[in-house]
Amino acid sequence: MSLAPLFDPPYYAVIFSTTQTSTLDGYAETADEMERLARQQPGYLGFDSARSSVGITVSYWRTLEDIKSWKYNLDHTAARELGRRQWYSQYTLRIARVEHNYGFGLP
Amino acid sequence: MSLAPLFDPPYYAVIFSTTQTSTLDGYAETADEMERLARQQPGYLGFDSARSSVGITVSYWRTLEDIKSWKYNLDHTAARELGRRQWYSQYTLRIARVEHNYGFGLP
Repeated sequence: MSLAPLFDPPYYAVIFSTTQTSTLDGYAETADEMERLARQQPGYLGFDSARSSVGITVSYWRTLEDIKSWKYNLDHTAARELGRRQWYSQYTLRIARVEHNYGFGLP
Repeated sequence: MSLAPLFDPPYYAVIFSTTQTSTLDGYAETADEMERLARQQPGYLGFDSARSSVGITVSYWRTLEDIKSWKYNLDHTAARELGRRQWYSQYTLRIARVEHNYGFGLP
């Protein structure tokens, strides 16, 4: 498993933190499909994702406009609605401008 | 389990993503101790953390200066050195200014 690489700042992070319900029918398939679609969006840079008692997915984007385009993608809008109805008991979403990044041990 | 709450933007996120080695002696104790110390730092707001094949910890801070003070904390500096020597095969660290946040299902 490897991490999303570093990019030249400034760029943007969408920090999506969740707790899940026990009703996860269709969740994994939809998450995979959203990942596939996000990769095709303009300005998409990469993402990291982890889940234990909470889940965190951080996706990286070149501009705020790129994030907005992904927000209004119809399939993504439908998936978010399912998320609120079925899969997530809580979530927070934060949009942040990455100003510095550095790494250790990266390829 | 509950998520870090929302805060009034702007504030700052430190996004720390890692892959671990198999040499995790002392890791859990040090992570707990760093969490305890971070909570005492000025400007500390909260954090979320998850680990599956990768680990992601996002901590939230009021200002960049608060992040810098935590960076130069001596115990934290020693813990980071141990992290590079023993526990982490890779990490990325990003400092980002949170410009928008919203949530669902929060208390």
